[in-house]
Amino acid sequence: MPLSRYGVVRRRSEMIVDGGTIYIGGQVSDNTAGDIEAQTLDVLSGIEKLLLEAGSDRKNVLSVRILLAHRADYEGMNRVWDSWFPEGHAPTRACTLAELINPDWRLEMIVLARLPDGARPGAPALKA
Amino acid sequence: MPLSRYGVVRRRSEMIVDGGTIYIGGQVSDNTAGDIEAQTLDVLSGIEKLLLEAGSDRKNVLSVRILLAHRADYEGMNRVWDSWFPEGHAPTRACTLAELINPDWRLEMIVLARLPDGARPGAPALKA
Amino acid sequence: MPLSRYGVVRRRSEMIVDGGTIYIGGQVSDNTAGDIEAQTLDVLSGIEKLLLEAGSDRKNVLSVRILLAHRADYEGMNRVWDSWFPEGHAPTRACTLAELINPDWRLEMIVLARLPDGARPGAPALKA
Repeated sequence: MPLSRYGVVRRRSEMIVDGGTIYIGGQVSDNTAGDIEAQTLDVLSGIEKLLLEAGSDRKNVLSVRILLAHRADYEGMNRVWDSWFPEGHAPTRACTLAELINPDWRLEMIVLARLPDGARPGAPALKA
Repeated sequence: MPLSRYGVVRRRSEMIVDGGTIYIGGQVSDNTAGDIEAQTLDVLSGIEKLLLEAGSDRKNVLSVRILLAHRADYEGMNRVWDSWFPEGHAPTRACTLAELINPDWRLEMIVLARLPDGARPGAPALKA
Repeated sequence: MPLSRYGVVRRRSEMIVDGGTIYIGGQVSDNTAGDIEAQTLDVLSGIEKLLLEAGSDRKNVLSVRILLAHRADYEGMNRVWDSWFPEGHAPTRACTLAELINPDWRLEMIVLARLPDGARPGAPALKA
């Protein structure tokens, strides 16, 4: 089946859905003056907006690569993270420090997710 | 089909199996006093334990992202790595330096793997 | 179905195709004396060579993780990148700084791609 692209500009697609798998490019916060909690919430909100657009949701995130610009932000990022995913539905994750392209970005997240079973293209209809 | 989660705590799932694909979160060594060879073996052993739990094995690893805290550890990590994967079954990999969250961790690995053909959910039975 | 490996040596497979998904290990340039534009073009050319070998092409790249050794190379990398992907077919991407294993490498790219629909193993024939 053909892949679906979202947020396509010259340089990149912001999201691609291929079969049941969702690929999301590096997500950062436009709120460059925000602290780590504000930026984390902003990034997660942007991810959710994309997931909903694809027909998925925050319960269907498979993996998140978290890149933090500052070690001191680790706890603040986790405070927002820990209350954002529904209990029992947190994704796999890996978090390291990294120097980001814009020095005002405090974090960047790279996400792989999935379409929920009912929304999966080609899945059998749940009801006749 | 529903995804399967392993090692679920508030913050993350340690492994998620979605269809035939296995996502494993960042793996580190608890042996924080160990040298690079000890920590590499520890990380690979932990990955194998997860793979076996999912019904897979070390021959079915698709990609490994290796994050090394110290450049001087590159050769030591490879000494363990090169003897760990069965000949002809090494995964794709990418290795760079990175500052890890715990300064005592010498490496972190992020793994994508697959269920072997016979174990793949929904795969046709091999024998009637 | 069995996975297909390409470029297998003791340490790694350079590419693995599993179902319709293509995993490519970290790609760097052999032209270690080259500037960022030369190295970027070299890396993208190497990726395309692998994609063609697998039966895919540059229109079917799903995600690229770009690791840059030097912040000053960001614009030069993008100059090559922006003219390389066909309009409307750019992948998702995430770009950060990272210290690479060989100090002469200016960038490294990690790619996930897909087989085009007609080439997808097991896909139903498009015409009877």
